Formats: sequence, structure tokens, C-alpha cells
Amino acid sequence: MSLIVQKYGGSSVANAERIKNVAQRIGHAREMNNQVVAVVSAMGDTTDHLIELAHQISTSPAPREMDLLLSTGELVSCTLVAMALQEMGCKAISLSGGQAGIQTDAAHTRARITGLDPSRISKELEGGNIVIVAGFQGVTEEMDVTTLGRGASDLTAVALAIGLKAARCEIYTDVEGIYTADPRLVPQARKLKEIGFEEMLELANYGAKMQPRSIELAAAYHMPVQVCSSLVEAPGTLIHEGAAMENRNKAAGVAADRNVAKITVLGVPDRPGIAASIFEPLAKVGISVDTIVQNASVDRLTDLTFTVARTDARRALEVTEPVAKSIGARGCISAHNLAKVSVVGTGMQNAPGYAATMFRALYEAGINIEMITTSEIRITCIIDEAKVPEAVRALHAAFQLEKE
Amino acid sequence: MSLIVQKYGGSSVANAERIKNVAQRIGHAREMNNQVVAVVSAMGDTTDHLIELAHQISTSPAPREMDLLLSTGELVSCTLVAMALQEMGCKAISLSGGQAGIQTDAAHTRARITGLDPSRISKELEGGNIVIVAGFQGVTEEMDVTTLGRGASDLTAVALAIGLKAARCEIYTDVEGIYTADPRLVPQARKLKEIGFEEMLELANYGAKMQPRSIELAAAYHMPVQVCSSLVEAPGTLIHEGAAMENRNKAAGVAADRNVAKITVLGVPDRPGIAASIFEPLAKVGISVDTIVQNASVDRLTDLTFTVARTDARRALEVTEPVAKSIGARGCISAHNLAKVSVVGTGMQNAPGYAATMFRALYEAGINIEMITTSEIRITCIIDEAKVPEAVRALHAAFQLEKE
Repeated sequence: MSLIVQKYGGSSVANAERIKNVAQRIGHAREMNNQVVAVVSAMGDTTDHLIELAHQISTSPAPREMDLLLSTGELVSCTLVAMALQEMGCKAISLSGGQAGIQTDAAHTRARITGLDPSRISKELEGGNIVIVAGFQGVTEEMDVTTLGRGASDLTAVALAIGLKAARCEIYTDVEGIYTADPRLVPQARKLKEIGFEEMLELANYGAKMQPRSIELAAAYHMPVQVCSSLVEAPGTLIHEGAAMENRNKAAGVAADRNVAKITVLGVPDRPGIAASIFEPLAKVGISVDTIVQNASVDRLTDLTFTVARTDARRALEVTEPVAKSIGARGCISAHNLAKVSVVGTGMQNAPGYAATMFRALYEAGINIEMITTSEIRITCIIDEAKVPEAVRALHAAFQLEKE
Repeated sequence: MSLIVQKYGGSSVANAERIKNVAQRIGHAREMNNQVVAVVSAMGDTTDHLIELAHQISTSPAPREMDLLLSTGELVSCTLVAMALQEMGCKAISLSGGQAGIQTDAAHTRARITGLDPSRISKELEGGNIVIVAGFQGVTEEMDVTTLGRGASDLTAVALAIGLKAARCEIYTDVEGIYTADPRLVPQARKLKEIGFEEMLELANYGAKMQPRSIELAAAYHMPVQVCSSLVEAPGTLIHEGAAMENRNKAAGVAADRNVAKITVLGVPDRPGIAASIFEPLAKVGISVDTIVQNASVDRLTDLTFTVARTDARRALEVTEPVAKSIGARGCISAHNLAKVSVVGTGMQNAPGYAATMFRALYEAGINIEMITTSEIRITCIIDEAKVPEAVRALHAAFQLEKE
């Protein structure tokens, strides 16, 4: 008998009918003589409703209270899935994150898992139960409820799979797997049978739907992750270590991220320590800076441009403007309607042709490139957000991603 | 500095505005230099919505899962009240039943409190926090969430008041206190300044809105309970031990309960052991039998009538019919549209005039009495449900309850 950890997202448990459908899938996995642990997200847009409720009460709700509030969404869905299984005649039990042994630090709303005590889950599995776990949540040493950040039910599932030494982790979602590009933008997009962790990490960071921390964790512990649809019967995409080896030197997919803004500090004196004095204050308030570009210095003055998530842009500007003033820069400007398009694939850096192909494809589609950034397995261009659909289609065609 | 435990019902926290209003009240109590623990129920009809959701999934949801599901309602409201206090600039923290140290047995959906560990609450109070506790819930030794039965946030509040050695327990509700009768039925109904525990227990059992177990518990530990409105400023009613002494030999109020059905077993052979054979099977399936009347035997055959909650009537008939057959009775009949009206007051049994006054008042109002039952401080008549308003008005007038 092998142990499987499954995860079902919010759209898969959005109403009673879908919950029954999810229970059928879980029950089926159990019938195949597996032990099953299923992690569930909150139903549909429950989390958004709870956030709205909190904002009716308070402009800046305390993170600790927010976590206890938001954790209820997953408690509701996990009890309902357990009930649906029991209604089918299956032995099942629902557990909160705390009961499931998910221990975290006290960094509310973005807690990190510090440990896993699988004793309760193991006991319930040994008792013949299917175990349904509330995703997205854990408890501190003081038994305060924490949440792990948006989309972190994936992380719960991967952590449990690792802690319970599961055969694999299955992520059920509303798409059939990982595609070479967003099928809504590119009709020719092809579902990948498999993909390496690193490539998936780049795709997840740049638009495809899986929480990046969960992929990092799966990679670190070599836990294979199968991503597939909770609505149709199809094999999905296997994220695992072997994949990268086999498909070396091939582009895996095109990703887009529309949550991008750029800030330019104009006329920065070009002397040592300036970059630190600009970026340290941003780090202190928890804003992640993504791409950084510094132009060649003219008359010992330079322009320094960086991108942040669009949701952080206003705050970033507030933090940066006084700094710019204090270091004698000319001022700050910002642009909000930007996006990243990325081509991801192993061995990118050793194959200069990739970058040229990408730039030419965008040029031929009439798309201006604002900034460029690369990693070992990714080339990203920052472009006008309005051009994302054309850009993704042009890149998908240029790299012939519709072909196996 | 004294410690006060407050409790706010579901209608008092039904929406964001009311939650802010509740926070104002709690903040005010804190400003009066008190330490404050506030217990809250779920918002409005949240609990009913969750029950409905469960019934969309399962015809008979498992009690353990049901408890974890329903407990989320109070978690939502307690976090929101804490946020509203923080927004006002007050230090506040929300705690689940388990975090608040409410320990229970594992009798899910109707768990009993087995212990209270006040260490977390005490720590938070010492840290200057107002502590908001999710009512209605606790945890078992195994850290499974339990609920204490419908309306049991009152019980949570009284238990915390006792465990924390509070000066008093304040129950805030949508009425201004305990009345001599339901003011919607009797415009002359008078708010009582005070009432004894025993009288309140009878009133609570027979229609007035406070959970009976919470009054029993307050009585056992001599904890004074103030019942007042969360919407208007008014002193409310103090439930305490002294009251019974002062008001001896006076009717305190009239209560009505519309949830009554009767079952009559016809032609029961009048021999020892028959009553047991009828009532034991009902006890086994958890049906509480209230009033029992057995007519004088004619030809060694008797009719045996008993009342049950209307919600239990169908089940009770299913259980009783085969028993009636097996003991050679002629059959069973049932009537559903019945109600109880009760006059409650200390010293009833030593003042025969009370019963006569009650029967005459009902007779003069043209109301037929189906059954009669009495306790030391209560006389109850079972009547046609349709006659409840007239009956309550007639009794209120006959006992001159409008006068102090």
C-alpha cells in the first residue's frame, strides 16, 4: 500500500456538487489500495470575502487576528469534504493545520513551516481513515494559528508528502497540467507530460499557477509532484527531477506575469554604496525588488531602474523618494502598466541562440523591450502590459513549442 | 481592578456596524478600569448557513466534523471584534475555545466542559489585552474541536467567569433583560430588576432566552449574571442568589414553550414494569420525555400520555409503536400542536392559591388544559398552541405581574 498526498484548490471545492466530485476522486484513490491524505483550500472566493469583512472593520487588521479569521475558510472546506466521503461510506476525518502537525514560526500571514509532527495523521491513517487536512495554515509553539501566504495549500501538501514519506504529491486544479503557454492566450499551447523542478520554478514565478515555495520545497526533498485537473480525467504534468535531464537544451514554455511596475531613480551620483542606500530601505519594509538595471554613467550621473510587484509600487515610491532626495538624485518616476514575458528552458545560458530568437520574435511582433533579465534557465523581457497576448503567441511560435 | 466577563449573542455581532458597536461597549468597560474577557457567538445566522451547507453534502453529517465546521462561525466573529477594538486603539486579542483553555469531553455537538485552563487568558490580561473568546466551543484531550450545544456561548461565558474568578458575568442580548412575560405577547410585561437562579432556570427552560445549562452552572458556583441589551443603555436583570430570598412567595413571570407534542398509548395493561418498557427505549435513542400522565385504570387497562419536544415527535412515535404492540396496548395516537404555559415563582408549592388562580384564569379565557405538571417553583399547563398569546396575557393579568 502506498501513501498519496493530494491537494484540491478553491475552485475544485467551490460548492456542494464540486465537493462531492472531489470526494469521489479521493475515494477512488483509496479504492486503488492507497492511503490518502488530501489537503484542501477554502471554497471558491471565501478567503476574499473574509478579507473584505475584515476591511469593513479595520483599515489595517492585525496579522495575528487576520490569520485566525482566514484559517476558518479551509476548516469549512475540509470538514465538508470529510462529510462527503463519509456519506459515500468511506472512513474519513478532517484535521486543522494544527491538528495535522504543521508547526510554523510566528510570522503571521506569511509564516514558514518549521516542523511537522505527523503523529496524528499517522494514527488516523493506521485506523483506516482518509485524512482531509485544512491547507494554508499551521500553528506556532504557543498554539496560535498562522497562515502560510496566498496559495500556500500547495505548500501544505508538499510538506505533508515529504513528512509522511508519500509516494507522490498530486495537485488538483482547474487546468489539466502545465502548458507551454497559457492556453487562453495561445490555442496551440501544449500540455507538458513532465517538467523539471527548476523549469517549473521559473514558470511558477512567472505566471503559471503553482505556488513557488511549494516547488522549491519539493525540489529540495526530491518529491515528485503531479499537477492535474480535478474536473476531467487526464494524466496531467509530472514535475520531477528526471525531466530536466531528458529535455536539456529545449525551451519548456512561455510564462507571463502582469503584476509588474518599474521605478526609475534619475540622476543618481555614481559612487560606491549608492545602490545599498536605495535598496536597503525597500528590503526593510518587506518589498521584493526584482529586475535592476543601471545605465552607463554619464558625467558621473546614472539612472537606476528596478521593478517591483505592481501591488507594492505605491509603497516602494513612498520609500524611495526621500532616499533619492537624500543621496542627491534628480528624482523618481514610476510606470505601472508593465508585464514580464519569459521563455523558460534548461541550458538557456549555454545556447545564445535562444536570446536572439526571443528578441527577434518580439521585434517582429512590434513589441518594445523595456528591460531584460536572465537566469540559467530563463530569459525575461519587460514589456507593455497591453502587448502580453501578442508577445506570448509570438514567442510560442518562435520556439515551436506546439511540437513535442 | 476587577475582572468582568461579557457575552455578546449572534444578533449583537450580526454585521460590521454591530461589531463596532460591541467593540465600543467592551472598550468602555475596559476604560472603567476593569479587565475584560468578552465571549462572542457567531454572526447572525452563520451557524444555520453552515448547517445547511453540511446538509447539502450529507444527510447525517458526523458530529465530529460538524463541530469543527460550526466552530468556525465563532472564530470569525471573535477575530472581527478584536480587530474592531484594535482599530479603536485598544489592545485586544482573539482566542479560540481551545486557546482559551475550555476543555471538554468528546461528546460532539453537545460536549460538556470538563476543565478550564485559564493560563493563556491570564497571560493576555496581564499583558494589558482585552481578551475576545470564541463561544460555544472547546477542545478534547486529543485537541479535537467540540461544540457545547445550541446557545452555549452563555455557558462559555459563565464557565470563564467562574474559572477566572470574575466579579460578574454580563450577558448582552437583543432584549433588555428578563421580563415577567414575552413583551411581544403582553404589552404590560415588566422587566425584572433581579431574579433568583431557580426561577430563572424555570423561565429559561420554558421559553425565556438564556441557555439553561449556563444558569445551572452559575447557580452552582454562585456567579451573579447580569442580562442586558447590547443595543440600548439600560440596567437589565441581575440573576443572583439573593433575589429568591427577597421575593419569596411571589410569581416572577409567565413563560411559554411552543415546541411540544404529546403521544398517548391507548389501552395499556396496568401491570408493574409497563412504564419502564415504554420509556426505556425512548431514553436509549436520546429522546427526553417531559410530562407523563397516566389515567386511572379501568378494567386493568389505562391510557398513558407523555409529551416530547415537537422535533422529537416523529421519532418518538416510531420507537413507541412497536413497544405498544409488544405489551398488548391498543395503539398510539399523537398530537403535535401543543404548547406549555408556565407560571414561575418561589414557594409555589406551599401556596395552593397559585394553582387555582392559574386554572381559573385559563378557564375564563376559554382555554382547555390538556395536561398539568408542577415543580416546587412552577406550575405548567399544556394547552393548544394557538391559544398561547391569550393564555400568557390572561396569566400575566391574573397574577398582577405588571405591578412591582
